[in-house]
Amino acid sequence: MTPTPAPLHLLPVPGLPEVGDGTDLAALLAAATAHPPVGGLADGDVLAVSSKLVSKALGHRRPWDGDPRAKAQVVAAQTRRVVAERATPGGVTRIVESAAGPVMAAAGVDASNTGPDGGLLLLPDDPDAEVGRLRAALLARLPHVTRLGVLLTDTAGRPWRGGQTDFALGSAGLAVTDDLRGGHDADGRALSVTARAVADELAAAADLVKGKATGVGAVVVRGLDPAVTAPGAGAGAGSLVRTGPGDWFAVGHVEAVRAALGVPPGTPRAVAVGIRPVGEDSVAARCGRAVRLAASGLPDVSWQQLDHAPDQHVWRVACPDELSLGMATARLEVACAAEDLALRWRREAGAVRAVLSPR
Amino acid sequence: MTPTPAPLHLLPVPGLPEVGDGTDLAALLAAATAHPPVGGLADGDVLAVSSKLVSKALGHRRPWDGDPRAKAQVVAAQTRRVVAERATPGGVTRIVESAAGPVMAAAGVDASNTGPDGGLLLLPDDPDAEVGRLRAALLARLPHVTRLGVLLTDTAGRPWRGGQTDFALGSAGLAVTDDLRGGHDADGRALSVTARAVADELAAAADLVKGKATGVGAVVVRGLDPAVTAPGAGAGAGSLVRTGPGDWFAVGHVEAVRAALGVPPGTPRAVAVGIRPVGEDSVAARCGRAVRLAASGLPDVSWQQLDHAPDQHVWRVACPDELSLGMATARLEVACAAEDLALRWRREAGAVRAVLSPR
Repeated sequence: MTPTPAPLHLLPVPGLPEVGDGTDLAALLAAATAHPPVGGLADGDVLAVSSKLVSKALGHRRPWDGDPRAKAQVVAAQTRRVVAERATPGGVTRIVESAAGPVMAAAGVDASNTGPDGGLLLLPDDPDAEVGRLRAALLARLPHVTRLGVLLTDTAGRPWRGGQTDFALGSAGLAVTDDLRGGHDADGRALSVTARAVADELAAAADLVKGKATGVGAVVVRGLDPAVTAPGAGAGAGSLVRTGPGDWFAVGHVEAVRAALGVPPGTPRAVAVGIRPVGEDSVAARCGRAVRLAASGLPDVSWQQLDHAPDQHVWRVACPDELSLGMATARLEVACAAEDLALRWRREAGAVRAVLSPR
Repeated sequence: MTPTPAPLHLLPVPGLPEVGDGTDLAALLAAATAHPPVGGLADGDVLAVSSKLVSKALGHRRPWDGDPRAKAQVVAAQTRRVVAERATPGGVTRIVESAAGPVMAAAGVDASNTGPDGGLLLLPDDPDAEVGRLRAALLARLPHVTRLGVLLTDTAGRPWRGGQTDFALGSAGLAVTDDLRGGHDADGRALSVTARAVADELAAAADLVKGKATGVGAVVVRGLDPAVTAPGAGAGAGSLVRTGPGDWFAVGHVEAVRAALGVPPGTPRAVAVGIRPVGEDSVAARCGRAVRLAASGLPDVSWQQLDHAPDQHVWRVACPDELSLGMATARLEVACAAEDLALRWRREAGAVRAVLSPR
């Protein structure tokens, strides 16, 4: 059994002045951490820094007049791939795989806590490389320190959980996972699939001290297991991003169905079909999107609305070619699932009579 | 601007003996926290306790002989709804909405750190109620303490991130979110959608001290903003669970497409079609699942494999009824998306010739 762990201390770094384009962040942080409560960085410490400070120092900022469409363009430029999207009164909210790596709302582009210059702050292009440079500059100023972890933190929502938490956007000089695979539990049984995401837990812990509105952008974590900051700690926080083949949630459940029908998120076609709103929506709007979704790519099929009771919408789907009519019917069945609608249908001469209703 | 936050201290609670069915957990925790480094619980503290300790004390344990099928039955009984599933050599791994509330792999049923009795530990049925009882029993033993937060922590993976982190399974006596909506940032700009999930960040922070293999099942967090443990702190951690209409990831992207074709996860029909494996799979297996998925519910359509080059599988889809043939073709197009396959097809007499290949 390993020895009882030591207490851990989360020490705020107050007194950081406003950071602007070109600010020497390492100099600021070295000076601010020299005072209590930190009293100087020491071997084994992890310094957690809000990514906003680094973005400001890098000048990763775009002027912004408050127009949602202008922000959407900036977000699009920071987007590798759209994961999910919903229409809101202020435009379309998109969860995306960001250029910086992590999956986040609006690609991490943010208009809050941007400093007196305002505008939109973008994430660093390569967070691990950026934090590596910051760490090297800090170590150059602190000759007595060799084992220092530096963490770049940002904030994001999570599927299935309310609220937001901080996570590790970038890191250097620390082990981002505590890999227990192949190890044993306290009872001596094999631990088969456990790898703690230490870097994300450090970011979340630091956020308890930083808060969002206090202007404290850095926190020192002191008292960690020395293994966390051991030399050659390995990959940065970028290695915690899990997208690609191992991702079971590559797109939202609505987007998956629409993409399977040839209408992926983040495309003009998705806008033409209509994007689901964040809140409740009328049955009429949902039926309309389901029909447009089913119809896309089948130009020879005609769609005629026959009746529209509040909770039941009747359409006549017609096509001289029965094969195309069958395709339209199957596509409508699938499209209804993307709108939580039930479909009943029956055959008529050269047509299908389709009844859509809430499920 | 709010004042600079105070340092935060995470204090391990060592010396907890093994917990069994009927153990008075409050008595154990009150005794163990009386010693250093905690030196007695104090107003404003949050005590984070591993849910395993509570499950053991409740006797929420099932005997288990190591048979994966027996575990699957226990997991099924703890499952409200299957979110995603993959076949593994040891059976099907399922991410589910658990009976306890949160979305977790295997409904939180766990065979590690179960103590000398072994078996499978289940989550408490109502985590918030359980932690409320534990807190009341603690306060009864600690007459000088009134503002005490108690947190039940568990471990889970996250979409888009590698590794696992601890989260708040249940809580009592603490504000689970730090709701900044309607507030202002350090620059005086409105913070529109920020609500920090404080309870989850507390759980993650505590895990940095607890670790997984050290036998330390409880941690005291000291130095939090007094608002966290203010009287009437409101809803428990159950309120952080976000499932239902506001959930953009109600099922995985593969499961969404299969469900839209009438084959939802966690059903015998899903098993009959075949469940995607965690790792790589042969093109032949993927094509087979796509065809079975498309064919389900269309009994009059016949499917005949004509050719199978390694990366190209040719099928003849036939039906005397052209409408059904069209439905089969459209369903096959959709089903191919669930297997990352591309479909090319052309019409033949009374049939469709379909060519499936990796996308």
